[in-house]
Amino acid sequence: MSDTARTWHFNRRPDGDIASDTLALRAAPLPTPGEGQCVVRTIYLSLDATNRVWLSDWDIYMDPIRLGDPMRGFLLGEVTASRHPAYEPGQLVCCLGPWSDRFVIDGEALQPFPDASGLPLADAFAILMIAGPTAYVGMFDIGRIEAGDTVVVTAAAGAVGSLAGQIAKLKGCRVIGVAGSDEKCRWLTDDFGFDAAINYRTEDLVPALREKAPDGIDVHFENVGGEVLDAGLTCMNDYGRVVICGLISTYNSRDPVPGPYMFRNVIMRRLTIRGFVILDYADRYPEFHAALLEWMRAGSLRYRLDMVEGLEAAADALRLLYTGGNRGKLMVRIGAEPAQ
Amino acid sequence: MSDTARTWHFNRRPDGDIASDTLALRAAPLPTPGEGQCVVRTIYLSLDATNRVWLSDWDIYMDPIRLGDPMRGFLLGEVTASRHPAYEPGQLVCCLGPWSDRFVIDGEALQPFPDASGLPLADAFAILMIAGPTAYVGMFDIGRIEAGDTVVVTAAAGAVGSLAGQIAKLKGCRVIGVAGSDEKCRWLTDDFGFDAAINYRTEDLVPALREKAPDGIDVHFENVGGEVLDAGLTCMNDYGRVVICGLISTYNSRDPVPGPYMFRNVIMRRLTIRGFVILDYADRYPEFHAALLEWMRAGSLRYRLDMVEGLEAAADALRLLYTGGNRGKLMVRIGAEPAQ
Repeated sequence: MSDTARTWHFNRRPDGDIASDTLALRAAPLPTPGEGQCVVRTIYLSLDATNRVWLSDWDIYMDPIRLGDPMRGFLLGEVTASRHPAYEPGQLVCCLGPWSDRFVIDGEALQPFPDASGLPLADAFAILMIAGPTAYVGMFDIGRIEAGDTVVVTAAAGAVGSLAGQIAKLKGCRVIGVAGSDEKCRWLTDDFGFDAAINYRTEDLVPALREKAPDGIDVHFENVGGEVLDAGLTCMNDYGRVVICGLISTYNSRDPVPGPYMFRNVIMRRLTIRGFVILDYADRYPEFHAALLEWMRAGSLRYRLDMVEGLEAAADALRLLYTGGNRGKLMVRIGAEPAQ
Repeated sequence: MSDTARTWHFNRRPDGDIASDTLALRAAPLPTPGEGQCVVRTIYLSLDATNRVWLSDWDIYMDPIRLGDPMRGFLLGEVTASRHPAYEPGQLVCCLGPWSDRFVIDGEALQPFPDASGLPLADAFAILMIAGPTAYVGMFDIGRIEAGDTVVVTAAAGAVGSLAGQIAKLKGCRVIGVAGSDEKCRWLTDDFGFDAAINYRTEDLVPALREKAPDGIDVHFENVGGEVLDAGLTCMNDYGRVVICGLISTYNSRDPVPGPYMFRNVIMRRLTIRGFVILDYADRYPEFHAALLEWMRAGSLRYRLDMVEGLEAAADALRLLYTGGNRGKLMVRIGAEPAQ
């Protein structure tokens, strides 16, 4: 290995959509790890809708990325050198780290990757790191799903949405997914076991929801915002729960984005609209991982990975999330998996 | 007494603001009460912002008023004849009933008015019927206020707002009220004991909130909607609660009304936005009345009544609510209080 690391940096704040000069890939010598630090070789980088939020000048849920700083993401890596007592070379770790092929990081910022033996490593990382815990908290803690509930999931073919819908099915709910193509709708019903699917690009949402959810919606799990959220609010049942997991349709907007026009239904239907950020639930990851691993090993959770090859492809790949161009959980393969 | 009752009817659906022909006053013979029914003579009629909602063609939280039907309101009356075993002539009752000087109603739709001896009857009705229970549920059940919280109340000089703020003060919160005139702002701080007040017509809301709530907002109690709600959302603390009690700024709109532009803060600040309707809490009225009567008798709840004289003045008076023209809890005196 060379002593040089390649890292994507936040180069220019985007005015609307992420542009070709928003991020810039730069090479620099790898620093020497200090006391308590580790060197990590990146294997997989997760691309997530919330990455765009970190590049905004909004007051967000954590420190934003400052111009010039390394771009940040959720990643899986292998420790190659350690000056922290809890880690040793060869160990698999995950963290919120730089978009880099290797990097030096405080050991305190790392988490050991859980034992997912018997499962493909890429799948385990894709589900256990962010998407699975997000779907789990969103459905159980925020949505408070109960058997028999009618649940709508938007961006349902996406990483979080497809798991959220399957978790609701495992709980005994009737689940309707909203996605952006007929092909994705077929995944929902044929692969992921949803009860029904709606293509928001070709169908009129409110009539379609009234048809597919004739008894109304008890829990609406929102990843998109805008018209899709409005349609869900229109069809909610009394005392319904609206889980605001993501608002991807609004993240690239130059201008102020209006909230849902059917906001009055918060009163008319006595709704609870609640947002959450999975980073707040770090202490419950063992619970999430135990449940998710059990379902994965039982074959109860289906999953699609959209794997992009190579660190240099990461910046262009990120843009796919905001057009719906990805076909499954978007990840970047940056380094080889360790030999078994 | 004559055998004729005068009653306001829903005459024409308003296109926007309530108009002079929205309601029509008609006289008709008083029907003979059937088995289980009572005749009630109206004393006070409460005018409430939600009255406008009942005249809309929206899918609301209860049966709307159909064209031609009597207009509906919360009222206090005296039973003058009874064919229901629980009621006898001379008894004070309250109900959701017609805007009428007297009427026949099923006894099951009546509630005995609680014993408010020692208190002015008009004040007791104004507080105990709707505004007090609404403020109580909104602050405790929906807002989950705790001592030390910073609480913002909008339409704070209104019937519900002024009580909501005082209840939060009794709980040990810091309370900031938003109102529509300098005079109303003086009521808030000088009469109602709020810590600070903001005139939304003359002050820039976000900077004013940042100044008056320098530690951010924990609970936002919303009666208005629109820009006022947006400003509150902008200044919320993490895990804040947004109580949607009313959205009066939107009730007269001809066109779809956008939700709050700062809706993304539902995620960024992990907010819970929750709406409620006091009619859902009928079984807890004894609890509300016990608390409210104790505070009233201790002199802990201040109150302003804006009393309009005579049934014929009711329709014009209702319109004051949507311009902020009322100066306190808006009520109509329709008949005399019983002799003590």
